[in-house]
This record gives sequence, C-alpha cells and structure tokens, in this order.
Amino acid sequence: MECYLDNAATTCCRKEVVEIMNQVMLCDYGNPSSLHKKGMDAEAYIKQGKEQIAKVLKVKEKELYFTSGGTEADNLAIIGAALANKRNGNHLITSVIEHPAVLEAMDYLKEQGVEITYLPVNKMGCIESDQLRKALREDTILVSIMHTNNEIGSIQPIAELGEIIKEYNPSILFHVDAVQGFGKSKIYPKKMNIDLLSVSGHKIHGPKGSGFLYISEKTKVKPLLFGGGQQLGIRPGTENVPAIAGLMVAVTQIYQDMDTCLNNLRFLKERLATGLLEIEQVFLNGYDPQNDAVHILSVSILGIRSEVLLHALEERGIYVSSGSACASNKPAHSKTLKALGLPKDLLESTLRFSFSVFTKQEDIDYTLQVMKELVPSLRRFTRV
Amino acid sequence: MECYLDNAATTCCRKEVVEIMNQVMLCDYGNPSSLHKKGMDAEAYIKQGKEQIAKVLKVKEKELYFTSGGTEADNLAIIGAALANKRNGNHLITSVIEHPAVLEAMDYLKEQGVEITYLPVNKMGCIESDQLRKALREDTILVSIMHTNNEIGSIQPIAELGEIIKEYNPSILFHVDAVQGFGKSKIYPKKMNIDLLSVSGHKIHGPKGSGFLYISEKTKVKPLLFGGGQQLGIRPGTENVPAIAGLMVAVTQIYQDMDTCLNNLRFLKERLATGLLEIEQVFLNGYDPQNDAVHILSVSILGIRSEVLLHALEERGIYVSSGSACASNKPAHSKTLKALGLPKDLLESTLRFSFSVFTKQEDIDYTLQVMKELVPSLRRFTRV
Repeated sequence: MECYLDNAATTCCRKEVVEIMNQVMLCDYGNPSSLHKKGMDAEAYIKQGKEQIAKVLKVKEKELYFTSGGTEADNLAIIGAALANKRNGNHLITSVIEHPAVLEAMDYLKEQGVEITYLPVNKMGCIESDQLRKALREDTILVSIMHTNNEIGSIQPIAELGEIIKEYNPSILFHVDAVQGFGKSKIYPKKMNIDLLSVSGHKIHGPKGSGFLYISEKTKVKPLLFGGGQQLGIRPGTENVPAIAGLMVAVTQIYQDMDTCLNNLRFLKERLATGLLEIEQVFLNGYDPQNDAVHILSVSILGIRSEVLLHALEERGIYVSSGSACASNKPAHSKTLKALGLPKDLLESTLRFSFSVFTKQEDIDYTLQVMKELVPSLRRFTRV
Repeated sequence: MECYLDNAATTCCRKEVVEIMNQVMLCDYGNPSSLHKKGMDAEAYIKQGKEQIAKVLKVKEKELYFTSGGTEADNLAIIGAALANKRNGNHLITSVIEHPAVLEAMDYLKEQGVEITYLPVNKMGCIESDQLRKALREDTILVSIMHTNNEIGSIQPIAELGEIIKEYNPSILFHVDAVQGFGKSKIYPKKMNIDLLSVSGHKIHGPKGSGFLYISEKTKVKPLLFGGGQQLGIRPGTENVPAIAGLMVAVTQIYQDMDTCLNNLRFLKERLATGLLEIEQVFLNGYDPQNDAVHILSVSILGIRSEVLLHALEERGIYVSSGSACASNKPAHSKTLKALGLPKDLLESTLRFSFSVFTKQEDIDYTLQVMKELVPSLRRFTRV
C-alpha cells in the first residue's frame, strides 16, 4: 500500500491539470507576446487564468501576477514592496515561524539596513494581536504574516491582524504568505485588508514552478527581475503558459465542492489525531480543531527520533515528513517547533502528517495500524 | 496548412518532453527535499538532468543551476555577479543588440551607480573585437554578450571575445546569453572562456518555465531570491522537477544527430533566403551563410508594413514575427535593426522567419509560394 501523507511538502498533479498542460505544450504552444493566432491562443490561457483566480479571491484580474512559485512570490512581495516604499520607512514586521522564503528575504533586507521585528507565537503557534500592536511603529512599511504554518498547521488571525495594521496606519502594507493556506481556508484579500498574497501551485495539485502574487492595485512593488516587459514589467520573462493553465485548473477544482472536501479533511485529521493519542506519550503540536489547518497534523512521539520513524513508515509505504520539506535537508532544529517551546527531546521526535483531497479513510486507518505497531517496538530499540 | 515559422519566439514541446513531465507530475511528484523515497525519486531527476546537461556542455554538474527560464538566468548572471564582485570594480560591458533580459538588468545596475559600456555592432550585427579591446578597463568586472541574436541570427565571435577578455584580465567575468544559440551551435564554456552561460528550455522544444545558468566553479554570484536553501541557496524554491526532467530530455534530444539537424536547417534557410530574394526589393538582414544562425532569417520587404504582412501570412496559416516576440508587444523600432543602420522604411517592414527541427521543406516551399503571391499584391494596396 502506498500512502502519501506529505501533501504539505508537495502534492501530485491532478489529471485535469496535466491534461490542459499537455494541450498547451503540444498544441497551443505559442509565445503570448507573438502577434499571430498562436500567440493569441496562448495569451487567452493567461487571461482565463487571471479571470478564474480573480473570481475565487474576489479581486481584480489586473491584481494578479504569475510567478515561478511561492518562493518567488514571497520575495517579490517583501523585497519588492520594501524597495518601492522606502520613503515611508525602514521597518518591517514578521513572525518567528514564517517560511524560509520570508525569513531569508527579511535577512537580505536586514543586510541592506532595514529593521525587522519578529513577533513571537504562543504555545499554539499563534500570534497574539497585542504583540502586533506593540510592534507597529511610525516607520513600519510592511507586515508579513503567513496564513497557515507549514509545520504545525496553526492558522493566524489574518483578518484581525489586517484590521489592527490598517487602524494603526492604512499605508502600512500587509503581506500574507498563503502557500499552505490557499485552498484549505477561505481567503479574501479585500475583506481581510491584505495588500499582497502569495500562492504556490504545487501545494494544491497544480504544477511545480507555478504560483502567483496578488498585488492590490494601490500597492507599489519593484520588480526583482528585468526583461521583455511581460506582466507590466513586474515579472518579465516569457509567461509559463502551461503552468498558468495548470494552476488555473487546480484553483478552479479546489474551489468546487470546497466545503465537502474541507469537512472530509477535518474528519480524517481528527481520526488520525484521536488514534495517535491512544499511543502512549504522543503529543500533538498546535492542535486546535476549532481553528487549525485541516490538512496538517504535527505529532511528537517521545523516545523515537523523527528520521527513524520516518524511514520505518517509508518501508511500509507511508510517506511523511520530519519538520517541513523545505527545511528537512538542513539538519537543524525547527524554528517553529522551538518557538512553541517544545523541549529538545520532542523537537527531535516530531513528524508531520499532511493530507490532500486524495487522502482516503483507509490511508488513515492503515497509518494508525502501522503506527500502533511501530512505535512500541521502535521504543524498545531506540533512544533519542 | 499550418506553418509555424516563429521558433525563435518559442517552440512546441517534444512528445518525449511531455511524456517525462507527465510521469513526474502524476507519479514521481515528490518534493526533492523530502527524506523519503518519493523525495529521492524526484531528486534523481535533478541529478540526472545535471549529468546530461553537464555532459553536452563539458562542464561539471555542480556548475549548473536551474532557473525559471532565460530571463531569470540572465538576471542572476548579471545582477548576481555584479553584486558579488563589487570589490573588483564598477564597470560592465555589453552590446547594443542584447535581449531585454540583459539590457534591462544593465539598466537596473546603472540606477545603482554601475557604469555600462555598450559595444556597437557592424552592418552584419557582429561585434568587432577591437571595440571590445577599447572598452575593457581596469575596473571592468563583467562582459555580457549574447551568442546568437534573437532578431537577425548574427553569431558573435564568442571564443575570440573570451580570449581578449581573459588576456586583458583573467578575473573579468564573461557572461554569454545563449538562449538563442544553445542547441543551434556547439558551445563549450570551458574552451570559450565563458564563466556564466544562460539557457532557456522553451527555445529548444523543452518546457516554458525551464532554463539553467552555468556558473563556473570559480565564479561568485549572489542570489536574487531567498528561501529554503535549495540549489545551494543560489536559486532556492522547490525545484521545478517536471520542467527540469523535460529540459533534460529536450537537451539530450537536440544533441542527438545534431549535425544532420543543423545541416538541414541551413539548407532550409538558404532555400527560403534564395527564394525570397527573387521578389523585388527584398533585403536580408545580417545574412551570412558562413557564420550566422541556421534557424533565423530576418527579411525586410520594402513597401509593406510588418504587421500587414504578418497578418496576411497568418491568414494563410504561416506564423512569423515582426522583430522578436519579446519586444513585439511594445510598438517601438527594434534596437537591433537600428544598430545595423537600417533606414526607417525598412525598420518598419521587417519580418523574422525562424525554424526548428520540425520545419519541413514543404513549409518553406509553401511560404515562398505565398510570399510571392502576397508581396506584389500587398504592395499595390499598402504604403509604409
């Protein structure tokens, strides 16, 4: 049995996504900048992609810019906005549990002399609004907060934070990294006072190398790349039309029957959580059924190193993650788990199970059965 | 009949490229940073991609970095190298006929206070080596010259320029934008003193959104994007594995039977050139059968505006370009054609025909037949 429970790292593409990409790659392969029919056919996919995505987010088409993925979207939002709005100040706010694409972009700006405030999180992995209130300053130009944490699935109170920011000063920009949240929560930038929103395709059964940045029409962003003027010069380079078409299909599909899918994911997560808690000395991180992400469950299993359990599960066809994939090739303790205050022995014994619309109840039941076998037997043989 | 002669703008994907991408998107879809088998299977494509590309370029695998395309590769090379080598000087050299991805990156650096020298070209669209010799300075840190011009197909004397640069000062970096040249000429960075080489996938029947930058192991480059540390932090972000796999297949295929393919392209180009010259007042730009690119033919047809002829050809199923696709949505005179000294009436009457390995002799013959009909009849009705 193969049981892919690492959907927060990446997802398989939907069949329909691959189908439209094949159509574009083999037939409608023109360069959207070309003046002839082949070019216009290609351009139509971009237009349609923007229409569909604008519709689900309730934003304008011209507020969407396609990128090569979440990392580029985050960088363009943060560095691009910081450079374009220098005149308004020199201070940015973010949190300690952001994705490296945000934290490393912040580090880059810090080298350029920008001041950064890092908000702490509580034991549940959530930012408390008072912390944001205290951090806001006259020279703050941008606040960047992730929607859903990639390691533990905690969801930030985005709408509330947006309100606090804009009440303090409407010209402070609010960037939300929604790479893990998009498609798993309902996100409406206009309602939530979000000026910049990053989304990645490969987390929602779309293609790798796809993503977009929503930039509200009032927001100024400087490009990071320069070229032939595509996408109003904000993100030049021949548009990745097959990826844009694939992303469009992925977005459209995830919004069909969304409530049913989310309810099912919640049910599966609860089933796994409840089952795992039957094993001794198992702890759930940031677990909050009323509020957390439906697709991510972070579990610490005292006494067994993450890698040992990960590979033991792998042998039974179950694929999970220790920490996040984006950081898992760097052998350091997770900043997110540390921020929750986890003791060292749990830091090194944490697995992330993450689900998708293709996860079935039998995957969960099989995983529980294997975990109940493996954990006690591994505990007999291993030590942290 | 459909006759796609705009292959310098973009090409259709090869069937084999699409096949491997489908395999990756549907089956081997793991995140290459994941520690389990699905991740390792994905990582294997990246490793294999580097091996194959390193082999044809005769470089080391670790000297290759995958990007989202040619624009990003050019920007990373130029801006990244300029930032990383600031200490060595503040002067860059390029030419007047570079792609916007190079010229606009230069403009950005100019805003930051970097000095740029633009080398002129002769009537054939070629840089004369004395011009480079005169431009080199003690504070020159990088020279960026395209291999093959995208509008007229002129090929620069890269090996000679490389020698001149390194004789003057071995620490001056040489960047070559080979987006149009790769796969149409034999390019060996090590032999040609090239430190940085940009390549795009979609010009060689690979996927859009794919490309790579060769960075010689001695060359320092600062990243433009920041994130999870992938590709040694030079180009972070989850690797676009399907695109990398597709690019690998495209590269491998184009190097199979390369001589036969290039000879065939040369034959087709000559056939079209000779046939078009039978029409009155038709001029070829940068045409040099001993030295120019086998796949690009730039033709000025006195008395007919490019757009008029482009759309008349389109009606007969023939797709060509006025100028380059990358610039064709900006209605300005081509810098390249101007640099050749073309008079205004020819500037506005120029078409680019560009071929690929899938272009057939019957495409050329059909195009000639249509052009011989259209040109005289359009000349009766239109004026520049």
